[in-house]
Amino acid sequence: MFDHRTEHVDDHMVLVQANLDDMNPEFSSYVMDRLFEAGANDVYWVPIIMKKGRPGMMLNVLVAEERLEQIETIVFAETTTLGLRYVRAEVHRLARQFVQVETEWGPIAVKLGFHRGELVQMAPEFKECEAAAKRSGVPLKRVYEEVRRNYADNRTLE
Amino acid sequence: MFDHRTEHVDDHMVLVQANLDDMNPEFSSYVMDRLFEAGANDVYWVPIIMKKGRPGMMLNVLVAEERLEQIETIVFAETTTLGLRYVRAEVHRLARQFVQVETEWGPIAVKLGFHRGELVQMAPEFKECEAAAKRSGVPLKRVYEEVRRNYADNRTLE
Amino acid sequence: MFDHRTEHVDDHMVLVQANLDDMNPEFSSYVMDRLFEAGANDVYWVPIIMKKGRPGMMLNVLVAEERLEQIETIVFAETTTLGLRYVRAEVHRLARQFVQVETEWGPIAVKLGFHRGELVQMAPEFKECEAAAKRSGVPLKRVYEEVRRNYADNRTLE
Amino acid sequence: MFDHRTEHVDDHMVLVQANLDDMNPEFSSYVMDRLFEAGANDVYWVPIIMKKGRPGMMLNVLVAEERLEQIETIVFAETTTLGLRYVRAEVHRLARQFVQVETEWGPIAVKLGFHRGELVQMAPEFKECEAAAKRSGVPLKRVYEEVRRNYADNRTLE
Amino acid sequence: MFDHRTEHVDDHMVLVQANLDDMNPEFSSYVMDRLFEAGANDVYWVPIIMKKGRPGMMLNVLVAEERLEQIETIVFAETTTLGLRYVRAEVHRLARQFVQVETEWGPIAVKLGFHRGELVQMAPEFKECEAAAKRSGVPLKRVYEEVRRNYADNRTLE
Amino acid sequence: MFDHRTEHVDDHMVLVQANLDDMNPEFSSYVMDRLFEAGANDVYWVPIIMKKGRPGMMLNVLVAEERLEQIETIVFAETTTLGLRYVRAEVHRLARQFVQVETEWGPIAVKLGFHRGELVQMAPEFKECEAAAKRSGVPLKRVYEEVRRNYADNRTLE
Repeated sequence: MFDHRTEHVDDHMVLVQANLDDMNPEFSSYVMDRLFEAGANDVYWVPIIMKKGRPGMMLNVLVAEERLEQIETIVFAETTTLGLRYVRAEVHRLARQFVQVETEWGPIAVKLGFHRGELVQMAPEFKECEAAAKRSGVPLKRVYEEVRRNYADNRTLE
Repeated sequence: MFDHRTEHVDDHMVLVQANLDDMNPEFSSYVMDRLFEAGANDVYWVPIIMKKGRPGMMLNVLVAEERLEQIETIVFAETTTLGLRYVRAEVHRLARQFVQVETEWGPIAVKLGFHRGELVQMAPEFKECEAAAKRSGVPLKRVYEEVRRNYADNRTLE
Repeated sequence: MFDHRTEHVDDHMVLVQANLDDMNPEFSSYVMDRLFEAGANDVYWVPIIMKKGRPGMMLNVLVAEERLEQIETIVFAETTTLGLRYVRAEVHRLARQFVQVETEWGPIAVKLGFHRGELVQMAPEFKECEAAAKRSGVPLKRVYEEVRRNYADNRTLE
Repeated sequence: MFDHRTEHVDDHMVLVQANLDDMNPEFSSYVMDRLFEAGANDVYWVPIIMKKGRPGMMLNVLVAEERLEQIETIVFAETTTLGLRYVRAEVHRLARQFVQVETEWGPIAVKLGFHRGELVQMAPEFKECEAAAKRSGVPLKRVYEEVRRNYADNRTLE
Repeated sequence: MFDHRTEHVDDHMVLVQANLDDMNPEFSSYVMDRLFEAGANDVYWVPIIMKKGRPGMMLNVLVAEERLEQIETIVFAETTTLGLRYVRAEVHRLARQFVQVETEWGPIAVKLGFHRGELVQMAPEFKECEAAAKRSGVPLKRVYEEVRRNYADNRTLE
Repeated sequence: MFDHRTEHVDDHMVLVQANLDDMNPEFSSYVMDRLFEAGANDVYWVPIIMKKGRPGMMLNVLVAEERLEQIETIVFAETTTLGLRYVRAEVHRLARQFVQVETEWGPIAVKLGFHRGELVQMAPEFKECEAAAKRSGVPLKRVYEEVRRNYADNRTLE
């Protein structure tokens, strides 16, 4: 296993895919939740066009090889597919770090990403910004903006 | 009613829409077939993202006001929607004409469209090209190409 | 205002649309939540391709004319758009009724829809099915199936 | 080759992909038909955005390694692509079994899927349900519902 | 005509739509360019699924009623459609203003949007940011960030 | 390295993918430009639905293994992703050749593709057709048609 504080390439990942043309789309958020709980690294849907021009959804699950079996069991239990395919993948993850930024709505976490030691990403935590926006009645985009600005202003002072 | 051989604007059309997030996508071709049989002028699906991030499909039916009721009955009977909306629309249709074009696979129909008396569209009939491709084992794109070329070559000779 | 227990057509609805090509997509669920709170009847996103081939999102809000102003204020405050358009729409809503269905996981609500007095829709409540599936560890699709089956079996007995 | 009545993992599959931004979309159903005839296990289209923001379609063909050559020949003959890529894939297929279910419209086949010996999928055959709906004038969704219910009711009796 | 420096609602707009299933997608940027030149207020594409499950594109053009004719002529000349529909629309546009923001890469324009006199939008001009990023070799996202920050920092000082 | 005039399979290619749910979509064309400049063989976007139902974009870059590092550096610098994955791919490229076709708007290049020595593709160069259409005021589709026809007519004469 990797220490997520360090940049690394993980070469034992699998991308599991299933094309669904007869599943109630209402189920999709539940399927996602269960897959994340079972250790999926990422889950996403791709709109596709299937046999006879049917509008379908391709389920994609990125997962470590050692958890493949649990993921498959959930896909077969919770979706309507009769088969799934997997493709070997390597995943390159940046070094990550969290810092707190002061704002007029209290401290908000910011996720930083480093490539070869250099800061390349800076993302305010969605849930905390959303909570601040709800509490204060201020537009969410203004909260994001403020977090980014305060982070940048402080960095310049260092 | 309009004579489709003449260019015209029909201002008594309605665009019927229903957002579906809990219908088996397998049903979509059947729903389309039934709507066309009941006199829909056009039917198409738009992939959308609905409440709670659910991947849904928006059904769209273009229909003359006087057939709205039959269309609604089918939408409620064959899809899972609890409501639908409609928007008034005007439709501008080109004058249309069919001609036969000679090809090495026999005659194939071509649909022509005229705007203010001028030829602006020329489309080989899909079904006939497809049949010719299947019969002869020639790529479909080559059949299309040939039909278009022969149509243009003959026109130049006139 | 309409009594939602009766089938009706509401002809004072507006479909508000804004094309967004510079908004952080992370904001989309928050924008939806706020619009529903302000009285939107429906909110959905359509993936589109905008100027210079940019992948954008079209926000759609279905709302009663008398709440248009509040909806507009939220769209301008929470998204990045400099303009929005609206189209007049009529909405046809089925008569709706809720009934309880007995299942091995307790009673679960089912929403019924009636067109001209005839039952045309029957939909188990997603949240209740989801809760039952989580509590019991049974696949969500099995819960749905059971609710539908028990509803149908009882109806036949009547 | 595998016996499809047994659950298995097939690790000699290939996913063939071609990005198309200059093909007449009308050709897509014909291309699909030809690929299925040549032994493709699955064919589907993914809407994508290509160079210069062009709306394109990515063709995807899942096929056994030993049939790759025929598939490539069709892709080059019937689409407009100058290249294609392929990715190695493994396919996990459930054990499958067909059973007949009695309905008021005659017997209808149901496809069952088993994961580790346990029933996880049950899908009425689309074509047969569609034929029954057309013959009887009953909504397709009611036919499906009935097939599912009768299957479940009988299973409980066993 | 409206003064775009003032917030206003324009109620003589039309949304022109054409569903295309047999046009070379390569043409789409050219069609857009020509429509903007002819006075379209906005042009965008919606991926749709058409008759026989064909992947199609719906062209959308927002235009003032008085320019409808020129727009129609271009749609018929440059696309493959045999008909188009239009829907009446009202457009609500914010008051707009441009200001210059100082950055380490020179001044960059920012577009401001006002709703009822209150600033609600602030968007760095894409083309100028892109040019600065290209000239300086700095990531585009850093240029944007800097423009936004400098705008906000100056506003606070006022 | 391969001579692109000969048909070949390149088995040292990588498909780099990053799922983006918090990037300004306006950046997408710039990101594409930079990736092509750094030697990407192809770049395209796939609309997807991500965690919490967010509308996201999956960036795809097809690149030779030996240029993977430069591509990764750009993806991390110019997008907002904290990780990316790659999948090994083989690319089959047709033999390509350019020829000039005479038209009433001057010579226009046509790209030909050969599979096992047989001509399977013929595509007029978009930029040259576009330039001819702009110069002459003739619809782009007519220019394409003419180029294709003249190519075919000449070939028949040979």
